[in-house]
Amino acid sequence: MTKTHPTILVVNDDGITAPGIKCLMDVMSELGKVVVVAPDSPQSGMGHAITIASPLRLDKVEIYEHIDMYRCSGTPVDCVKLAVNKVLKGRKPDLCVSGINHGLNNSINILYSGTMSAAVEGAIESIPSIGFSLDDHTLQADFSHCLKYVKEIAAQVLRHGLPQATLLKVHFPKTPHIKGIKICRQANAKWAEEFDERLDPQQRPYYWLTGVFQMNDSGEETDVWALENHYASVVPVQFDMTAHHAIPLLNNWKFNI
Amino acid sequence: MTKTHPTILVVNDDGITAPGIKCLMDVMSELGKVVVVAPDSPQSGMGHAITIASPLRLDKVEIYEHIDMYRCSGTPVDCVKLAVNKVLKGRKPDLCVSGINHGLNNSINILYSGTMSAAVEGAIESIPSIGFSLDDHTLQADFSHCLKYVKEIAAQVLRHGLPQATLLKVHFPKTPHIKGIKICRQANAKWAEEFDERLDPQQRPYYWLTGVFQMNDSGEETDVWALENHYASVVPVQFDMTAHHAIPLLNNWKFNI
Repeated sequence: MTKTHPTILVVNDDGITAPGIKCLMDVMSELGKVVVVAPDSPQSGMGHAITIASPLRLDKVEIYEHIDMYRCSGTPVDCVKLAVNKVLKGRKPDLCVSGINHGLNNSINILYSGTMSAAVEGAIESIPSIGFSLDDHTLQADFSHCLKYVKEIAAQVLRHGLPQATLLKVHFPKTPHIKGIKICRQANAKWAEEFDERLDPQQRPYYWLTGVFQMNDSGEETDVWALENHYASVVPVQFDMTAHHAIPLLNNWKFNI
Repeated sequence: MTKTHPTILVVNDDGITAPGIKCLMDVMSELGKVVVVAPDSPQSGMGHAITIASPLRLDKVEIYEHIDMYRCSGTPVDCVKLAVNKVLKGRKPDLCVSGINHGLNNSINILYSGTMSAAVEGAIESIPSIGFSLDDHTLQADFSHCLKYVKEIAAQVLRHGLPQATLLKVHFPKTPHIKGIKICRQANAKWAEEFDERLDPQQRPYYWLTGVFQMNDSGEETDVWALENHYASVVPVQFDMTAHHAIPLLNNWKFNI
């Protein structure tokens, strides 16, 4: 059952001034009352980091009329925690949406992604949550072809809810010609890292993380396959990281203690 | 089959000067050749964060004889990436151990933990990996009762290997009277957050993350139960976050696009 005027929390990891979050706010405003709590600076690659060794700032900002917006000095996950606890004062929103991320979070990239980790945090808080990403990491990214999908997927989640401890990871191809929606699993892929080694003016080395995305999965039901074949991908995500299938094996180990 | 002299990568999130990593180095030195790459400062709560917007420093340090040690300016996950790519020059170590963490990473805390994320990154690199944590977050923590368990579990992993894309999360109770080892699953629990709101000297508010750990799981096969009952817990962990059980449900949704 969809509430007539749900409260929708909007977060991201590219920062409160990123074009992607503006698109997400606009679409969500058509579905309910929007509250935005987003990092005051880009937080890509922050994963599920939280701020524990320093305090956080949270300031109301007036950028767009009719939208409650707060900028936060912390990580995307901090934003969700502050939103629920301080901004909404413990009242859970009906939906938490994160993004739209400038760049992909497919396969293993979910672990590095601040966008997805914010949505995971929403799900930990028992809020139906979705992380959205577009295959274009530039600030000039064009999100217009994604918006009807964003609205429809969010509306479905408001209508049906999501299974307990489950959230959605949604990706869009860059092409405006999206063929449809595929329900997918996380592809088996990884980064083959390289570090670009340079010398500073004092001739001391420093390193830039770089690398090549390495696909080790030929399945046609993966998020990577769907994107490459111009589908929007929807992956249901859980945060129980137990490898349940490995428990019987480990129970057979004999520990000599 | 155990190699006669395996290479063992040691990382942590409490920083290269933490007592917990010194204990881990000492035990691992009894099993093989140790290489340490650890953060130059405490990185608790960094989760799976990586450094992409700034460069990294990596410096060899001479603290203990016979142990190759490097301090890194980045996150725990950065340390693993730099260790494999730069320090070991692409040669995979036979084992990656992370910790021993000063403080627990049970249940959902695996997501926030730099210690566990470093071990997850090792597993992504196809290295048999283990994250160790003790239920004592103080710098004065006494790890001595854990060390025979650390050695035995690491030796077993060197002997048997681990299933593909699986790592181990190992926790020790604070009590020196450990009853034994329990193979466990991640408990269903969360933090009931609160933010301690204070005013700075300019009377502007700032917030410290705090909260109470909330157990929502009465199972006796969980990591939280094991700890409370004085067992060392071993949780097999995977990094495929797909909620496979939810795929059929989502395939029944009708998207009106």
